[in-house]
Amino acid sequence: MSDVSVRLGPNKYGKAEVRLVRITRDSPRHEIEDLCVTSQLRGDVDGSFLTGDNSRIVATDTQKNTVFAFAKTHGVRSPEQFLQALAGHFTTEFDWIDGGLWQAEQYAWDRIASGGPGEDHSFVRSGRATRLAAVQVSGGETHVTGGVKDLTVLKSTGSEFWGYPKTEFTTLPETTDRIMATSVTGRWRYLPEAVEAGIDYNGVYDEVCRVLLDRFADVHSLALQQTLYEMGKAAIAARPELAEVRFAMPNKHHFIYDLARFGLENDGEVFIADDRPYGLIEGSVIRDGVADAPGAWLELPSFV
Amino acid sequence: MSDVSVRLGPNKYGKAEVRLVRITRDSPRHEIEDLCVTSQLRGDVDGSFLTGDNSRIVATDTQKNTVFAFAKTHGVRSPEQFLQALAGHFTTEFDWIDGGLWQAEQYAWDRIASGGPGEDHSFVRSGRATRLAAVQVSGGETHVTGGVKDLTVLKSTGSEFWGYPKTEFTTLPETTDRIMATSVTGRWRYLPEAVEAGIDYNGVYDEVCRVLLDRFADVHSLALQQTLYEMGKAAIAARPELAEVRFAMPNKHHFIYDLARFGLENDGEVFIADDRPYGLIEGSVIRDGVADAPGAWLELPSFV
Amino acid sequence: MSDVSVRLGPNKYGKAEVRLVRITRDSPRHEIEDLCVTSQLRGDVDGSFLTGDNSRIVATDTQKNTVFAFAKTHGVRSPEQFLQALAGHFTTEFDWIDGGLWQAEQYAWDRIASGGPGEDHSFVRSGRATRLAAVQVSGGETHVTGGVKDLTVLKSTGSEFWGYPKTEFTTLPETTDRIMATSVTGRWRYLPEAVEAGIDYNGVYDEVCRVLLDRFADVHSLALQQTLYEMGKAAIAARPELAEVRFAMPNKHHFIYDLARFGLENDGEVFIADDRPYGLIEGSVIRDGVADAPGAWLELPSFV
Amino acid sequence: MSDVSVRLGPNKYGKAEVRLVRITRDSPRHEIEDLCVTSQLRGDVDGSFLTGDNSRIVATDTQKNTVFAFAKTHGVRSPEQFLQALAGHFTTEFDWIDGGLWQAEQYAWDRIASGGPGEDHSFVRSGRATRLAAVQVSGGETHVTGGVKDLTVLKSTGSEFWGYPKTEFTTLPETTDRIMATSVTGRWRYLPEAVEAGIDYNGVYDEVCRVLLDRFADVHSLALQQTLYEMGKAAIAARPELAEVRFAMPNKHHFIYDLARFGLENDGEVFIADDRPYGLIEGSVIRDGVADAPGAWLELPSFV
Repeated sequence: MSDVSVRLGPNKYGKAEVRLVRITRDSPRHEIEDLCVTSQLRGDVDGSFLTGDNSRIVATDTQKNTVFAFAKTHGVRSPEQFLQALAGHFTTEFDWIDGGLWQAEQYAWDRIASGGPGEDHSFVRSGRATRLAAVQVSGGETHVTGGVKDLTVLKSTGSEFWGYPKTEFTTLPETTDRIMATSVTGRWRYLPEAVEAGIDYNGVYDEVCRVLLDRFADVHSLALQQTLYEMGKAAIAARPELAEVRFAMPNKHHFIYDLARFGLENDGEVFIADDRPYGLIEGSVIRDGVADAPGAWLELPSFV
Repeated sequence: MSDVSVRLGPNKYGKAEVRLVRITRDSPRHEIEDLCVTSQLRGDVDGSFLTGDNSRIVATDTQKNTVFAFAKTHGVRSPEQFLQALAGHFTTEFDWIDGGLWQAEQYAWDRIASGGPGEDHSFVRSGRATRLAAVQVSGGETHVTGGVKDLTVLKSTGSEFWGYPKTEFTTLPETTDRIMATSVTGRWRYLPEAVEAGIDYNGVYDEVCRVLLDRFADVHSLALQQTLYEMGKAAIAARPELAEVRFAMPNKHHFIYDLARFGLENDGEVFIADDRPYGLIEGSVIRDGVADAPGAWLELPSFV
Repeated sequence: MSDVSVRLGPNKYGKAEVRLVRITRDSPRHEIEDLCVTSQLRGDVDGSFLTGDNSRIVATDTQKNTVFAFAKTHGVRSPEQFLQALAGHFTTEFDWIDGGLWQAEQYAWDRIASGGPGEDHSFVRSGRATRLAAVQVSGGETHVTGGVKDLTVLKSTGSEFWGYPKTEFTTLPETTDRIMATSVTGRWRYLPEAVEAGIDYNGVYDEVCRVLLDRFADVHSLALQQTLYEMGKAAIAARPELAEVRFAMPNKHHFIYDLARFGLENDGEVFIADDRPYGLIEGSVIRDGVADAPGAWLELPSFV
Repeated sequence: MSDVSVRLGPNKYGKAEVRLVRITRDSPRHEIEDLCVTSQLRGDVDGSFLTGDNSRIVATDTQKNTVFAFAKTHGVRSPEQFLQALAGHFTTEFDWIDGGLWQAEQYAWDRIASGGPGEDHSFVRSGRATRLAAVQVSGGETHVTGGVKDLTVLKSTGSEFWGYPKTEFTTLPETTDRIMATSVTGRWRYLPEAVEAGIDYNGVYDEVCRVLLDRFADVHSLALQQTLYEMGKAAIAARPELAEVRFAMPNKHHFIYDLARFGLENDGEVFIADDRPYGLIEGSVIRDGVADAPGAWLELPSFV
């Protein structure tokens, strides 16, 4: 290997996808929180990269143990609060750790309403969507984001697409009535002052999901872009704690199947759902007057 | 290649995973059926294998077209009825086709109760479980099965496991209180006379799912095997149309996390959910007095 | 729940997807075997299902421990031999266990030919295909099968498809030149007398894979069915140890993209690879004169 | 919905996962290029978000068609060159499109060396790794990156881990001999002047992959961080075209299985491969003296 002069650039490390299940059994009627937690640290750990000196490497196994210990000592309450506790711990306990990214997915469970003896401690996984949360510490600031993914929605009418440029490579026919379907991934950033004041994160999550569904349903859509914007605007309108919302929305194509070849009409009744390729619309909606916070999004998936 | 004397054995062929979405828009309040359909034919098509003679090969593309055409002409109503229509078509239209296997998955959508203009035609995918159906034609008989997969359930107490043999390779401690979690895959065979008389397949599906959940919750479990058996028994008790039920139930391990190392108690509160390996319990429950029907299960996943 | 009279039907249970990595370090030049093992037992364990009596339940955790202990005491050599050792152990050690199914996947690793100090103990995962093996004990007999999955192949010419029936639902144009692509899943059953005499399982696996590839390449194909049959015939011709071969071959469609709309020719150069739906051809080829062995295939995926 | 004042933030849109297969058949010995292409545009398309005005929306379907047309007119040669052609087209053809992100995965195929008539046009998918490429146009500049993912490597010795801080939550024992395994995802940015001068992208890809493997093998590792850094340094040393390299490397844990419980020694021979959680090390190595290019990485996965 020839000699070359290089330096270490941005880095972080930690433990990914810690599958934590927390049961609250203070009463016979149990509660469950089911999370997938990732903890990653940033700081002056260059020695580990440059020479294999691990004296400043809080082992990823130690980070994992901390997740489970904190689940006992702090409880989970909301993923946002749980991640803040982890972030606070690692950035104060180790003076060379000055930042990091803590992320969680949360899976929802519904109680099984059996009416029998098992109802108090039996659950069925909802599967409707996955909740997202992230806490970022960078540049001396702490940022909190919530989110949702895999919220799959479809409307069978009330969607048009026309008026786009016709180029040499354009073959798509215009339509005033199509199926529109997407699987919403969204992240919302909380205003720092709202974080400071204290937020009902679970309440925000529930309300934002409800608002997103309602707007998806009720906006008569001329473009998925328009629907995305209206959904983001509605989320921000619904909750003063939100600074901005970012979305990735695949356009999950449902093509009308050509039945005329068999002498059959198909007036918007029979579709083939296609897998790939798919449209992919990504965009953000920002509350007027709030300061940008690029650090909040550092190394988070850009729109997903 | 040296000379060798061989013959063609069992075979079938067709089109797999046809993603059919059927919208019923007879009124402003739309309905949606979302299926993944597989159609496979059996019969005297040896020429295709032996010499590439396709004169008896109903093209898989033709089978796909038929799925969409039948969605228009027959509607879907239930996946079991839709598959029966396909099965009847292929085995009567082509005299050399004497059997086949038609399968479907169905994905559930909930209406978005926006209260606004989009409510009538907007849906969110439920994600709780996937419905299964299969129609088998073999040996001159038609068999109908329904089912469910990915119905993920968990109970945080009410599950014990002890009394098993202690061998040289046994290290598992006995427990009288553990989390029990599984993802239920089940298939139920309908009695031929019930199929003949006509069945409310959608009603059966809903009721069986409800019964499975309730029994999972209410059985105080000494083994996942026992829970499986009680769930199967309850399903058969609930619906006279059912001849037998087959289940595959992974034991999705949730291990209590050892917090004593950190001076913390863990009284059934903090668990790590493990991915692999997992227990796998497969079993069937059969109504007394009904005839075996091995042909019904031909080339279906044995328990899953 | 109303009273109902039911009985327990076929069942088995065990531990699935045990991820075993075995390093042989008898010399500085290490060897690696990387497996995913599933062990399932059958026998008189009805008490567990009926009453939760686990006195005959060899715990799935015990089965897992046995896999690792046997990796030490027996080594792996080939997955077929390793599974036979497990099968022999469980069916002789416990007199109420009279059968079972033991399965393995094996992942191939290539040595990294660095020419440096790490070459002897450094590997890169091949990823080309996954090896399959199964040992079945049922009805007092032991059956051994080998196999392969995810062997993905494509030929850019030398494949035709025409001469199929034209029905009211046929729209597919005939072709004398298309891409043919599939992902081969195959299982081969070993002749009991060959198992008895001892088999070089690794050698068979390598040779069968090579023969399958060569025949896929060299058969001018009129149908994927024909290619499947020729591949099976060649495998049986190549190795006298084989009794029969079963294949599942998806027809992974590559559609020629219509460039004429842009004034461009497309003479078999530009294709779109489609995901779903896909053709699915399943079939078996059997050596003349060998006895059927349905027990060998009991509860194995029928063709996959 | 209450009134709220918001604005549109960063956005882009396009067609994702276009599955393009390009056959070069200028001679009987065919070549294959197999890609998954994503095209996304940025520019002044706010009208689409704000009012559903699509007059500046180059339809995602049009972008898809362009991919296939360019595969014919330009050929693929390398994914980096193909994406540059697309980027140039969209940012010059439409004056309101001033940027975008074009990405590709490429899947490798090996020729089937049958020695028979099919050898010239028959291929088997390699599966060892997936090639990555991206072209970014932002702020008037064009950036080109190459990469690889799912390059899975393991060394059975030559890896230590010790000297890390022992905290109240540390339970991991130190080790001077462990398995180290990871699945490398890496992206390298090409120097703008090298892009300008012309690069043998395929040659770079092959050489970087070879260098990464060799360094993984030959570095005696005290930490995965150290291995990552040495791999990045070696890649930059090997090819003057590279400005920087970014890696995400999961630490795929292989735990030694405790066989002492069964009276067996386990001297680094028998391991269980664990799925989750896993360590996750992300870092970058930068050639001294090159200017930062944050725009190159805009909205690309941060380390993966």
